Amino acid sequence: MKNYSIAKSRRLRGTPYTSRIEKQGVTAYTVYNHMLLPAAFGSIEESCDHLKKNVQVWDVAAERQVEISGPDSAKLVQLMTCRDLSKSKIGRCYYCPIIDDNGNLVNDPVILKLAEDKWWISIADSDVIFFAKGLASGNIFKVKIFEPNVDIIAIQGPKSFSLMEKVFGKKITELKFFGFDYFDFKGAKHLIARSGWSKQGGFEVYVENTQSGLDLYDYLFEIGKDFNLKPGCPNLIERIESGLLSYGNDFDNNDNPFECGFEKYVNLDSEISFLGKEKLKKIREKGVNRKLMGVFIDTDNISLTRSLDIKNDKGNLIGELRSACYSPHFKKVIGIAMINEPYCKASALGVLEIDGKSLSVKVCDLPFI
Amino acid sequence: MKNYSIAKSRRLRGTPYTSRIEKQGVTAYTVYNHMLLPAAFGSIEESCDHLKKNVQVWDVAAERQVEISGPDSAKLVQLMTCRDLSKSKIGRCYYCPIIDDNGNLVNDPVILKLAEDKWWISIADSDVIFFAKGLASGNIFKVKIFEPNVDIIAIQGPKSFSLMEKVFGKKITELKFFGFDYFDFKGAKHLIARSGWSKQGGFEVYVENTQSGLDLYDYLFEIGKDFNLKPGCPNLIERIESGLLSYGNDFDNNDNPFECGFEKYVNLDSEISFLGKEKLKKIREKGVNRKLMGVFIDTDNISLTRSLDIKNDKGNLIGELRSACYSPHFKKVIGIAMINEPYCKASALGVLEIDGKSLSVKVCDLPFI
Repeated sequence: MKNYSIAKSRRLRGTPYTSRIEKQGVTAYTVYNHMLLPAAFGSIEESCDHLKKNVQVWDVAAERQVEISGPDSAKLVQLMTCRDLSKSKIGRCYYCPIIDDNGNLVNDPVILKLAEDKWWISIADSDVIFFAKGLASGNIFKVKIFEPNVDIIAIQGPKSFSLMEKVFGKKITELKFFGFDYFDFKGAKHLIARSGWSKQGGFEVYVENTQSGLDLYDYLFEIGKDFNLKPGCPNLIERIESGLLSYGNDFDNNDNPFECGFEKYVNLDSEISFLGKEKLKKIREKGVNRKLMGVFIDTDNISLTRSLDIKNDKGNLIGELRSACYSPHFKKVIGIAMINEPYCKASALGVLEIDGKSLSVKVCDLPFI
Repeated sequence: MKNYSIAKSRRLRGTPYTSRIEKQGVTAYTVYNHMLLPAAFGSIEESCDHLKKNVQVWDVAAERQVEISGPDSAKLVQLMTCRDLSKSKIGRCYYCPIIDDNGNLVNDPVILKLAEDKWWISIADSDVIFFAKGLASGNIFKVKIFEPNVDIIAIQGPKSFSLMEKVFGKKITELKFFGFDYFDFKGAKHLIARSGWSKQGGFEVYVENTQSGLDLYDYLFEIGKDFNLKPGCPNLIERIESGLLSYGNDFDNNDNPFECGFEKYVNLDSEISFLGKEKLKKIREKGVNRKLMGVFIDTDNISLTRSLDIKNDKGNLIGELRSACYSPHFKKVIGIAMINEPYCKASALGVLEIDGKSLSVKVCDLPFI
């Protein structure tokens, strides 16, 4: 497959770490929330293997925050998500589908409760800030909404725990999954969450003090040799194998949370009020007629730029492939597809046409691993 | 400058024309409204020169539409823009800054009035759809908001008029600037506007019938030889020389329309109601303390991934450079910068530090040509 360059500009702006990762060998970028997000440091197969065994530092500054504060902030945040946040606690992260009036997805951020009247929405790739601003204006909410200068670095992989203990002390190992707290690095306080875009374990440092973040980045690489630390980035193979869904890839504003397997984050039976609640009740009642599933594809490489139809042997559409990559673990291509009823079951068979070739497709449950 | 690959995925999806432009020699992409937008076919200098003398066909499907229809659609569209649309006419395009409650810019689309109760907002690179959905929900407006399947191809350059006349007949040459009408191509109706992302003249075909659009694309290249037609894309050099501003590059949600020279689209003295009106009145009264200006930079190449500070010889910040390119016309780098008072005047001097080198900067008025 031919490579195309990315044309850089302020509109796809770099991060405080861009010059560092370019020295460290980044080879490909994607664009996420109008920023450069590294997508490869050479082979993503090798990087996936390294991530599963060691530890990586990732420039994920493109994971932007929407800060919502003020007396009506809790009301606005709840209005945007179908997850019940009435019992949410300060110091915790919550994975929250953001839903529009039609019951469709706008984003699937992690929401951090910083105070009763201060929240960070750590967004996937869509402009939640304008959704929040529109809702606040229309509802005449007393809130302040802006994008703070927060540039996240992630430390991911099984050795992240011992690496981070060496930097921040024993206390950081006591952080529970999706908990966050403040930790000191050479006099600067950093919000650190036990979270990240991999299933290999790790942390995300929400850097507000840019210079201290850069110092921390450099320090991690200084002491990282003992842990076989490498620079990395969210890994396509690892995320598909783990069934970590991606807004814009696997689902978008044309899909509802039930189709995406988000049932446990859809709280329709409490008294809380949020957009699309009645629509979602109707969908739950009727049931969905399609669902995100895994697929195995009999080939050894693939590159998607849009969804591809999957048909059965009678030529009927059974679904569409939305993400895919070669998995060295399975020795074939795996993918995530929106599969229509009655084909939403493991081992349903289909066919995909790519460049005039017919490839066999087999549906399976998510996650793969 | 090193090139980096773009990692393709559905999240940065291709357009119906992507496979064609890849055969035609596209070399670089940018990402715009979550889609691939071609950024170069080899040398942008040569392409700029060709565009100024001939005609090009551009895949600008990334210029997405937000369709707003229904009884409250006019009210919602007006609420979002500071330009008075009360006398707007069906069949016309309107360049309209979209403004938030703070009086800051959200986008700078062209708005097409399709009917009294049906509008297309042809957006720059931000998710205006979610701003509209939030406002509609909060204000309980009766509207339908969605992104229709419209994939624009642009025909730009001085020879576009004779080329388009050959395809669509004399009638298309009578279209006024920013007017649109419907034209037939082999039995399919296409909305065509006299508009585009260059100052070289031309048209945009708002393709709803994808197959007919592809046929038209191929037909233009078939008959285009006589016009020295080439594939192209919005050209960085041409747009900076012409002073065509770009949301995300030259301005963003931290800037107001007065700072960007949009005064003539800010209608504060009529009875219409829109977001940020009171804020904008205050800004007009006080005056702005910075402004988008042109700059000449004494060097022969540049690549920006974020804004760069411009200082004067005393080391004081006088502004920030936001877009820049080498202009063969001026034989030096030209750029667009947000310049602070009291330096907002042609021939103010400054210095830019890039890679340890100090470059002289001279402020000038926009446009350059």
